[in-house]
Parts: sequence; structure tokens; C-alpha cells
Amino acid sequence: MSKSDYFKFELLKVSKKSKARAGLLHTPHGVIKTPVFMPVGTNSAVKMLTNHHLKETNAQIILSNSYHLFLHPGHKLIEEVGGLHKWINWDKPILTDSGGFQVFSLAHLRKITEDGVKFREPKTGDEHYINPEISMEIQQALGPDIAMAFDECSPYPCSYEQAKEAMERTHRWLERCYKAHTKDNQALFPIVQGAFYEDLRKESANVISSYDAVGYAIGGVSVGEPIDVKNHFTDFVTDYLPENKPRYLMGVGTPEDLLDVVKRGIDMCDCVLPTRNARHGSFFTQYGKKIIKNKEFEKDLLPLDTECDCYACKNHSKAYIRHLYRMGEANAAILLSIHNIRYLVRLSEIIHESILNDSFEEFFNERYDNYLKKTR
Amino acid sequence: MSKSDYFKFELLKVSKKSKARAGLLHTPHGVIKTPVFMPVGTNSAVKMLTNHHLKETNAQIILSNSYHLFLHPGHKLIEEVGGLHKWINWDKPILTDSGGFQVFSLAHLRKITEDGVKFREPKTGDEHYINPEISMEIQQALGPDIAMAFDECSPYPCSYEQAKEAMERTHRWLERCYKAHTKDNQALFPIVQGAFYEDLRKESANVISSYDAVGYAIGGVSVGEPIDVKNHFTDFVTDYLPENKPRYLMGVGTPEDLLDVVKRGIDMCDCVLPTRNARHGSFFTQYGKKIIKNKEFEKDLLPLDTECDCYACKNHSKAYIRHLYRMGEANAAILLSIHNIRYLVRLSEIIHESILNDSFEEFFNERYDNYLKKTR
Repeated sequence: MSKSDYFKFELLKVSKKSKARAGLLHTPHGVIKTPVFMPVGTNSAVKMLTNHHLKETNAQIILSNSYHLFLHPGHKLIEEVGGLHKWINWDKPILTDSGGFQVFSLAHLRKITEDGVKFREPKTGDEHYINPEISMEIQQALGPDIAMAFDECSPYPCSYEQAKEAMERTHRWLERCYKAHTKDNQALFPIVQGAFYEDLRKESANVISSYDAVGYAIGGVSVGEPIDVKNHFTDFVTDYLPENKPRYLMGVGTPEDLLDVVKRGIDMCDCVLPTRNARHGSFFTQYGKKIIKNKEFEKDLLPLDTECDCYACKNHSKAYIRHLYRMGEANAAILLSIHNIRYLVRLSEIIHESILNDSFEEFFNERYDNYLKKTR
Repeated sequence: MSKSDYFKFELLKVSKKSKARAGLLHTPHGVIKTPVFMPVGTNSAVKMLTNHHLKETNAQIILSNSYHLFLHPGHKLIEEVGGLHKWINWDKPILTDSGGFQVFSLAHLRKITEDGVKFREPKTGDEHYINPEISMEIQQALGPDIAMAFDECSPYPCSYEQAKEAMERTHRWLERCYKAHTKDNQALFPIVQGAFYEDLRKESANVISSYDAVGYAIGGVSVGEPIDVKNHFTDFVTDYLPENKPRYLMGVGTPEDLLDVVKRGIDMCDCVLPTRNARHGSFFTQYGKKIIKNKEFEKDLLPLDTECDCYACKNHSKAYIRHLYRMGEANAAILLSIHNIRYLVRLSEIIHESILNDSFEEFFNERYDNYLKKTR
């Protein structure tokens, strides 16, 4: 068996009015309609959602973090029990990131060498080491459908030299990832780096496109840069990625981001925002992000969003959820998390359909008008 | 219409070997099999459980707190939206306590007079007042199936004089509660007080039994006294309560408590312990309470309790839940809360059946043996 027995991407349609694309990504655990939003389950659980409620959001694929699972409970334990799907009891597709991003953003006292990265775990102070081979070992042990290459993510802002060095190391590490990755029923997505320099991004896109991958990712975005910069570089990079393969923009986004990046040729994205926002009491609506504790919702018996079909919206009022939030009840965060995840999943479902029936740009404009009117 | 059109208690069986009883309590929102354990939803939500998961535990009735709802969001708001059932979106029976217990245990700077209790809300410092008439107004506005009389709960230990004074005031307040309570589709349960003095408890049981109530409660228990004292007084008081009416022991219990008090003639009880324990990482099993973070569960792929049929036990291992707990994921508390509530609900279902088929005492001994062997 080879990768092509397990994975296939069907590009169903490319919009005539934008770069938006609708497709089907076949994986060992099922077919994913793209564009797709992937909820994040950092520690092998999407925060606040039982699998029952997560499935009810119709999430097609979830993301988990190699960095976190490597530290706790350890990828070996998860391998022992039969892999991540069994560990979580989740039978749909899973994607793991490589640990690269977290090593650079979360770990302490990291020391980068050509071989890899030494770092200390913030909580315990314990020293650890990850390099391309170890990242591949971790992800092959975890056994998600999609693994990510171990890369070096540049911060924002960063100098040209720093960006170039990180990109070139990312390319050398990619070669090592490919050598170490032998699992046929697991896709390995290489990652474009190059910060916010067009020539670097172009070079990186060309290098990673030279690998025959199931899909290609864009990293180093959503690291603090202005929205226009993010949109410009997303648009720029997708021009250099293979047309017939899915493109995953890492760490994006909000509902607005999802519209923005799909329009610029992105098929997959992920973000911790829906559950993080929920824990802080904010929720997505067709008119932008709202804050549940606001006085205006005190007697509001309508659902969080009148169009939404999530468990929270079908069963509870804003007044009730606001009360729970004000009382410090985690139930509020549970209901808001369910809503925010379903909101993004449903948005990606609408986007998929709208691309197929040539109405994506119309939907984009209408939705964006709402967002701009009410929240910006 | 009168109360007897809405409420009926069928005493199906009294054990020949103990005072255990099995019955059916008919209420406006459904029939409750007794003995029954009632999960507590202090702020109008059972902590950590969505209604979906709460219904899945087969909880027959939930309890909510007048004191908390009076303060936030206010009983008037809940009345405006159509009452507590609509507010929570819960169509099964609800019981509210009177606020008495919380005024005495939670409020600050309380001043008790013959008329009622003035107190300050701890968080805001705002001054409030509750008396029997206000408690009845609150509970009639909230609209649960069962309301509780406004009583004065004695602390443990307390002097004979203090206990007698609180009991006598409770009786005078009961008379006022009955005058103020006019809702036919809501039961009003009077409460036995008298601390841990047999003559006071006997007197109080006789006084409250003189009211033709749907059911009778025993208060002032589970306030810090030793288990033997609790069991003795439960046994003592049930001798003086009407045989053909349900008896509710307030604020009890653990799985062991449930067995203990049913054996002594109790039909209903409630406790915050299942969800509180869950948030602190402990869970009920047939062999007693266990601590999820313990090293012994690191690779334990069995469910929390091998006999349990709850959502957590059907879907997840102890190793997985332990990992989530150690990572500080609220998902652990969600799964443990579901388990602990289902554990007590299921225990009460088993007890109900065992009384009907004459095996309660056998089950009691077997289960108690397990508890004693493994945890005490």
C-alpha cells in the first residue's frame, strides 16, 4: 500500500470570481469536505466539549498537539493503548502538529542547533529535546491521519536574515522529516515558512512543492501581523502551491479570517479561538463577536445566534447563559464553546456549499457587511 | 384543583428486614421512583453537565437554590420568562429549597428576628431580607414542583436552648409559610428541626406531621455530626413521620449515606458532593471513592467503574481522564461529574428495585463490605 491508497484530494470546484475552492479530502478515517475548520484539542481533548457534543457540532477533523502529548502523557503511552484515535475515542480524522510551533512559542530556555531544539518544560523545568526525527517518531506513534513537518516558525516582526535562516533550516529539516517518515497511512504535510518576505515565501513554496505531499501547509502566519499582511501573504503563497492539493493555513482563524483565507485559496485551517473566546465569555454571531456578560442580554430570551443550529442555541437563551457566566458556572463556557465551534464548522459548511453553487463571493460580501456594521 | 390532583405518593413496598421503602411520587412534571437521589443545580444548572448529559444520567428530579436565584438573576426575571422549568429548559420535576439553609450557612452579618433574617450577600455586600412570606413568594415565582418551608437550621454542635429556640421559630415560620403558600400545583414540604436532641426531634416531627403535606423533610442533618449520630437521628425521626408520605433527608449524601438512610426509612435525598468531588478529581466506585490523579491509574484502560453505564464509563478510560485532570482540562471534571451523578442515580435505581424484590439488605451488606474493604 502507498499513500495514494489512503489519501486523495478531489478538487470539486474553483470559484470563477475568487480563488475559493471546494473539495473532498479522503483520509483513512473519512472524507473531509473542504474548506474545513479544524477544532483544536491541545491535550487530546477539545476544551469543554465531550465527544458527544463535539460530534454534534459536525466537526470533521480535530487537531491535537505533539508538543503537549510528548510531554504528557507521552506518545509511547498513547501508542501502547493503540494510538490517538483510541486514546481519545474519536473515529474521525485527526491532524497533529509537529511540536515546532509550541517549542518556539511555549517552551523555556530553548537552544536551537542544526540538529534540533533543546528546551525546558515551563511547569516542571525538565529538559527535553525534539528534532525532525523525534517529531516524526512522536507523530507516527500517535498515529493521526495527518502529521506535520517539524519546522522553525519565525516570530513577527523578524529580520530578513532571521527569516531566511529559519526557512532554510525548515527546508533541511523537511528533508530529514521525509526520510524519517515511513507510515503509509499517515500524510505528512510540509510547511511553507519565510515570514513576511515575498521572495522567501516564494522560494519556500517552491521547495516544499517539490515534495509529492498529500497536502501543503503555510506556517508562520497569525503570529501578530496585521490582518492585511496576513491576507496578502496568504494570497501570495497560494499562487505557488500545487492546484490539486489541499492547502492548510495554520493557526487561523476567526469567522472573518475563515472567509478571508478561503477567498485566497485556503482549504483547511484551525484555531484555538472558538474555545478560548468561549471561556472568556465571547461568542460568534452573524453580526460579529459579542460579549455574553453585557447587560443588553439580561432578559434576552433569544439564542446566541438566531441562525445557529448548535446544541446551545437549540436549547438555551442568552439570558440563561449570561446568568451562568456571571455566576462563574463552567456550564456557560461549555455552552459557548459548543456554539463557537459549531459556528465555525457551520460557516465552513456554508462556504463549501456556496462555492459549489457559485454564491461564495455574494455570501462573503453579505457576511462581511454584517461584521463591519456591527463590530468594527 | 387541589394538591391531591397534582401529587400522590404510592408506597409500593416496605422491606420486612429494615425500614427501607420503595415508592412512586407523582408530580406535575412526572413520576419519581423512590428512593431517589436528586442532583443539585445551585445556580439553575447542575455544575459541568449540559442538560443532554444530565438527562442521560436518568436524573429524575433536580434541586435548585432559592437563595442563589433570589440574588441572581432574581426570581422575578425567572417568573417573567415562564418559571424555572423554562429558564433551565428542564421538563422533569424540580425541587427548590427555601433559602433558609443558605442564609444561615453562606450569608454574612445575618440578623435573625422573629419576623425573618436580614443578611448581606458576601460578594457584593448588598443587604437583603428573607422571611417565610418572601421565601414562599420566591418559590411560587420560580414554580418548582416541590417547595420547602423556610426554616432555621441549627449548627453542630449547638446547645439545647439554641436548638429549641430554632425549632420553635421553625414551627412558627411553618405556620406562616402555609398561610403564604397558595399554589396548588406546587407541594410544600415542612422540615423537622431540633438538632441532635431526641425530645426536640420527636416534638418537631409531631408538629410538622400535623400538617397535611405531600412530603416531609428532615433538616439540620449532615452539618458536621458523626455518621453514627446522623444515622441514629435519621432512624429516630422517621419513626415519627407519616408512613404514607415521602421523607426527604436534606443535604445527604455519599453512596454510603444513601444506603444508610434508605435503610432507616428515607425516600429522597440530595447532595452537592458528586459534582464537588468530581471537580476535585475524585469519583465513586463500587469499592469506594477513588482519586483520579493517583499514579495507579496512569495506564489503566478500564472505565472509572466497571459496572457503571454512564457516558464517561462507556467512552473513556481512567488513564485518559487522569491525563485530562492532570493537564487541568475541565473535560476531566465534566466526565467525572457525569459519572458521579450517574453513579448515585443508578445506585438509587438499584436500591428501588432491590427493595421491590426483597434483596435490599443483601445488596446493602455486599456493597458496604466493598466500601469498608477498600476505603475506610
